Amino acid sequence: MTVDSRLADQIRFVVEIDKLKQVLRQTWLTDQSRKENSAEHSWHLGVMAIVLSEHAIRRDIDVLRVLKMALIHDLVEIDAGDTFVYDEVAARDKQEREQRAAARIFGMLPPDQADEFRHLWGEFEARRTAEARFAAALDRLQPILHNYHTRGKAWREHGVTSDKVMARNGHMAEGSPQLWDYATQLIADAVAKGDLAE
Amino acid sequence: MTVDSRLADQIRFVVEIDKLKQVLRQTWLTDQSRKENSAEHSWHLGVMAIVLSEHAIRRDIDVLRVLKMALIHDLVEIDAGDTFVYDEVAARDKQEREQRAAARIFGMLPPDQADEFRHLWGEFEARRTAEARFAAALDRLQPILHNYHTRGKAWREHGVTSDKVMARNGHMAEGSPQLWDYATQLIADAVAKGDLAE
Repeated sequence: MTVDSRLADQIRFVVEIDKLKQVLRQTWLTDQSRKENSAEHSWHLGVMAIVLSEHAIRRDIDVLRVLKMALIHDLVEIDAGDTFVYDEVAARDKQEREQRAAARIFGMLPPDQADEFRHLWGEFEARRTAEARFAAALDRLQPILHNYHTRGKAWREHGVTSDKVMARNGHMAEGSPQLWDYATQLIADAVAKGDLAE
Repeated sequence: MTVDSRLADQIRFVVEIDKLKQVLRQTWLTDQSRKENSAEHSWHLGVMAIVLSEHAIRRDIDVLRVLKMALIHDLVEIDAGDTFVYDEVAARDKQEREQRAAARIFGMLPPDQADEFRHLWGEFEARRTAEARFAAALDRLQPILHNYHTRGKAWREHGVTSDKVMARNGHMAEGSPQLWDYATQLIADAVAKGDLAE
């Protein structure tokens, strides 16, 4: 086959990232049939970014940038695995594992695109821009929605309490006060219904 | 809970579309462990749109519009199911089934967003704009890549021949001559290796 090496590198990356469909999260699908994987989770965030962008902390947010972050934010999990947001042990070496993964996986792309992806992922992780804060808010709202609609299945499996949910997701307010307000109502309602321990 | 009705409608839509993760396609993951679902497929197209947009028929393509189409193009399958691209019987009432699905699913959104989604989906299906043609090219390249890397697993299961693959995917050239050229090399190579019947 005669393919220029830039396209060949891009296609190798496209085939490699198929592996994200095999990385399982702790979140259950809303029908409780199985746990969710990180590829379909990333898709869900992407559609949420389109539908909910009017609730971002800034109305003139760059939706393309939010979408790019939503779609690539979990690619490092291909090597590093998914770290459950309430797992304090795994959190200790998460950054180191993910940095190594980013170097390998984004490094498969042509240099300019490898830079772009590393920068997008770094922006998402640092949560300093309005776009990154909004993408991160969606990344937290989505599993809260799934937990709420499965009567707190993942919360109960891991003995997560409402104070932890409030503490771990509070940064949502930096990306979207309105969605954080909505999330706090879901959390309170889950406690009231006995689906989330106080 | 006190939530304005616009946000409540948006959230109901976000929860509803979780069902796309249950819609199975004929395509196998590259490790052949299971078939792919339409949500993770849509995610894959989204990342491909970011990585491969320089190969679109027009260099100044609106990538945000391509991404939106990639992420929502299969939502109608929640009601209508996935129609295998080589299934000529199911193709007969595909349009009617999908139109009904679009009315119900997009109709869950606030009116302005329902209009936007219907328009994006219609644009994708009509393949008249450069953005729609490029999104459609990605939608065809992705299963060809998966078939190629699984030794033609879905092609063989359904007795698909190379002339059908060429005929059904030829419109890729309208969205990206370079990616269509690449796809035709994969197809020829699959035939040479005995993974795709002539």
